[in-house]
Amino acid sequence: MKMFGVLACCLCLGSSAAQAAQAPLRVNGQRLVQHLAALSEFGKNPQGGVSRVAYADADRAGRQYVMGLMHAAGLDVSVDTAGNLVGARAGTEPALKPIVIGSHIDSVPEGGNYDGDVGSLGAIEVAQTLNENHVSSRRPLQVIIFENEEGIMLGSSAIARGADAARLNSVSQSGKIVRDGIRFLGGDPDRLTEAKRSPGSIAAYIELHIEQGAVLEQQHLQIGVVEGIVGILDCEVSVEGFANHAGTTPMNQRHDALLAAARFVDKLNQMVTSVPGQQVGTVGWIKAQPGAYNVIPGKVTLGMELRDLDARKIQDLFEQIRTAADEIGRVNGTSFHFSPHALSAPALTDKHLQTLIEQSARGLGLSMQHMPSGAGHDAQEMANLGPIGMIFIPSVGGISHSPREFSRPGDIENGANVLLETVLGLDRMPEAN
Amino acid sequence: MKMFGVLACCLCLGSSAAQAAQAPLRVNGQRLVQHLAALSEFGKNPQGGVSRVAYADADRAGRQYVMGLMHAAGLDVSVDTAGNLVGARAGTEPALKPIVIGSHIDSVPEGGNYDGDVGSLGAIEVAQTLNENHVSSRRPLQVIIFENEEGIMLGSSAIARGADAARLNSVSQSGKIVRDGIRFLGGDPDRLTEAKRSPGSIAAYIELHIEQGAVLEQQHLQIGVVEGIVGILDCEVSVEGFANHAGTTPMNQRHDALLAAARFVDKLNQMVTSVPGQQVGTVGWIKAQPGAYNVIPGKVTLGMELRDLDARKIQDLFEQIRTAADEIGRVNGTSFHFSPHALSAPALTDKHLQTLIEQSARGLGLSMQHMPSGAGHDAQEMANLGPIGMIFIPSVGGISHSPREFSRPGDIENGANVLLETVLGLDRMPEAN
Repeated sequence: MKMFGVLACCLCLGSSAAQAAQAPLRVNGQRLVQHLAALSEFGKNPQGGVSRVAYADADRAGRQYVMGLMHAAGLDVSVDTAGNLVGARAGTEPALKPIVIGSHIDSVPEGGNYDGDVGSLGAIEVAQTLNENHVSSRRPLQVIIFENEEGIMLGSSAIARGADAARLNSVSQSGKIVRDGIRFLGGDPDRLTEAKRSPGSIAAYIELHIEQGAVLEQQHLQIGVVEGIVGILDCEVSVEGFANHAGTTPMNQRHDALLAAARFVDKLNQMVTSVPGQQVGTVGWIKAQPGAYNVIPGKVTLGMELRDLDARKIQDLFEQIRTAADEIGRVNGTSFHFSPHALSAPALTDKHLQTLIEQSARGLGLSMQHMPSGAGHDAQEMANLGPIGMIFIPSVGGISHSPREFSRPGDIENGANVLLETVLGLDRMPEAN
Repeated sequence: MKMFGVLACCLCLGSSAAQAAQAPLRVNGQRLVQHLAALSEFGKNPQGGVSRVAYADADRAGRQYVMGLMHAAGLDVSVDTAGNLVGARAGTEPALKPIVIGSHIDSVPEGGNYDGDVGSLGAIEVAQTLNENHVSSRRPLQVIIFENEEGIMLGSSAIARGADAARLNSVSQSGKIVRDGIRFLGGDPDRLTEAKRSPGSIAAYIELHIEQGAVLEQQHLQIGVVEGIVGILDCEVSVEGFANHAGTTPMNQRHDALLAAARFVDKLNQMVTSVPGQQVGTVGWIKAQPGAYNVIPGKVTLGMELRDLDARKIQDLFEQIRTAADEIGRVNGTSFHFSPHALSAPALTDKHLQTLIEQSARGLGLSMQHMPSGAGHDAQEMANLGPIGMIFIPSVGGISHSPREFSRPGDIENGANVLLETVLGLDRMPEAN
C-alpha cells in the first residue's frame, strides 16, 4: 500500500513534485455511472425514474445491491441498529477520528436516479479507488448509506441525535410503520440508541450530492461548494371565512376564504422576493372547503414554508407575513391562523472544509462557486457530530424529485473526484486526534 | 264550493267590497310550519339540517310523507315516469291550461330544511286551503314536487325539455346511477319521454322559495318579486407551470402554478366587482399538484363561475377574465386553459306574473322588492313550457345549503299567502284558453 497520509502534513494538492512522481489518483467515472444505472433498476417506474421509498421491497433490494458494491470496494460492511449501512476501512492510525462520507439511496415516490444515489455510489467509488490503488489513509474511513432520508431523515438523525419514539411509530411512504421498516432493513428498533454516536466522534462528514436546483447549470459551473443547509420553517395556515351560496350572496357580503388565501399566496411571494438574499418561500399545497362550483369557500388550509441559511431572517420574515395576513383578513372579513412546525435549524458547513473542497476542485481544473443548499440532507444531522462539508454537482434543468432528474456522467465523475481529493486532503491535515 | 273564478274577470285584489263580503282566504301558517318540521325528520343529521339527497332512502321516505300531505289536501296524486310527484286538482273549466305550483324536497349533502321544502309544502298548503274552504278554481291546479333538483335538476328538465341519456347514466349524490334512482322513486326511466310536456301547455308555473341570500333580510323586506333566474357559466380552469423543489429553485426561476392561480382568483374578484350590476363571480374549488410543502406546484385546477341575468354580460366578462389570465401566465411562465361548461341560460320571469305577485304582496300589506334569483330553480326549466313567476321570502343571515339555513315562520306563512293570492289572481285573469 502507498502511504499518502504520512507524506503530507500540510495542504500540498497541486504540488508539481507530487504530480510528477505518479499519475494522480482518480475515480473510475465509467464504473460509477454503470453502478448508478444498475441501482436505477430497483424500484424502476414504467414512466422512468424510481419509486424506491424507504422500507419498500425495492429499497431493501437496492441496499442488497449496494452492499455488494461496498464489499467489492473492500469495505467491512455492517448494518447498524438504525438500519444504516456502514462500510468501514481501517486507517494507519486507528486512534484518529474517522472521516465519514456517504448519502442515501431511498427516493421520494416517483423520484429520480441521482438524488442520494450519486453521493452514495460516489462515496463507495472513492473507497474502491483507494482500495484498488492500494492507498491507505491515516484516518479510518467510513462510508454510510443512511436509511430513510426522504421520509424523515431517520438514519442520520438516529446516528447524530438519537431517534424519538414518536418518529418510530409514524407511518412511512411504504405503508410500513417506521419501527417495522427498520427491522425490515436489518436494524433493531428496540436497540436504536446503540446507533447513536457522540458529538466530536468524527473528523468530518463530507457528502457529494446533486444540486437539485439550476444555479450551477445556468452559470456553467461544475462544482458547488456548499456554505450550509438552509433552515426550514413549515407552517400550516388556515383561513376561516364563511361558506355561502355562490349565486345568492352579493359580492360585497362575502367572507370568501379562498379569495383571502389567494391574496395571501401572492403577498407571501411579494414579501419573500422584495428583500435581498437567497431566501425562498413557497405555498405548496392548498385545500378549499367545501369545494364546489356553487359554494363560496368557507375555509381554506394551505402549507407554506420559508428557507434560508439565517434562522433569524426566517423568523423575521414569518412575523412580517403573519402581520400582512391579518391585514388581508381584515379587508374581507376572514381570519388567519398559523400552526408552524418546529424550525429545522440551518446547518452551516465548516469553513476549512469549504476551503479544502474549493482547492480540490481547483486542483482538478473545475469551475466552482459557493452556494447554499436549499434542500435538506443527511449532512445537516451529521453536523451534530462534527464538521460537515458538501459538494454539489449540476442538475440538468434544475429538476429533482422527478423522473426527469438528471446529472451528466462527466459532472458525476468530477464530483466523485472532488470528494476523493477532499478526503485525501483532509487526511493529510494536522489534527488534534 | 265557492266559485271565485267566475266572479272575477279582472284584477280585483284589495277590493274592499270583496273583503267586506267574506273573511279573506288565508293559509294555515301553523300547520305549514308543523309539516316542515315533520319533513325535516327524513334524512336528519345529528349536527342539524338534513342530508336528503336525491334517490337516498331518506328522499323516498320523505316523498312518502309528502304524498300523504298531498292526499290530505285533496289532490289526486300520481308519480310521473320521471319520478316527479304530481298532485292534480280539477278546475271548473277543464279545457283551460293548468296553473302549476311546486318545488322540490331533495337537499344537498348537509343541507337545510327550507330550500325546496318551503315551496313544496307551501304549494300543498295552498291546495289544502282551497280544498278545506271549498274554493274551486276555473283552471286546473297542479302541485308538482320535482325530483333531484339539487343534483342535476332532473325532474323539471324531464318535464320541460326531456332528459338525455347521458344524464340518466350519471352517478347521483346518493351513489345510485340516476336511471336506477328514478326507478327507486317509482318512475320509469325507459318511458321518460312520457313525462315531457309541450311548450305552451301550462298557464303558468309559480314557485315559492327561500331567497338563499341576505338581501331581503338586510333591507327588512318580506317578499322578493323575482325578475329572473340568473344564467350560470361554470368553467374548469387549469394552470400549467412546472413542479420543482421548493428549496433549491430560486424565486426568479419558478413557474409556480399556484402563484399564478392565486393572482387569477384575486383578479377575477376585481373584475367582477369593478363593473356596475348584480353579477357575481366565484372560485369555489381548487387543487394544487403535487401538493406538498417542499414542492412548487406544477399544476393547479380550479372551478370558477359567473352568474348574471344577462347572458351577454356573462360572456363579455368571461372573455375579459381569460385575457387577464393569459397576462398573469405570461408574467410567471405559466399557461391557463379554460374548459367552460355549457352556459345555463338566464330564465326571465313573466312581467305580468311579477305584477300579480307584487299586487298580491301589497294586498297582504307586505313590503317587497324586485330582485334576481342568484340560485337555479326548477322554475328555470319550467320556463320552457310557459310563463314563470317566483316568490322569495327572507333567509336569516342569507345562509343556505347549510344546517344553519332558516326562515322565520311568519315569513313562510307570508310567502304561502302570496302564492295563494297569486294563484287566485291568475285564475281570475282573462285568458286565451
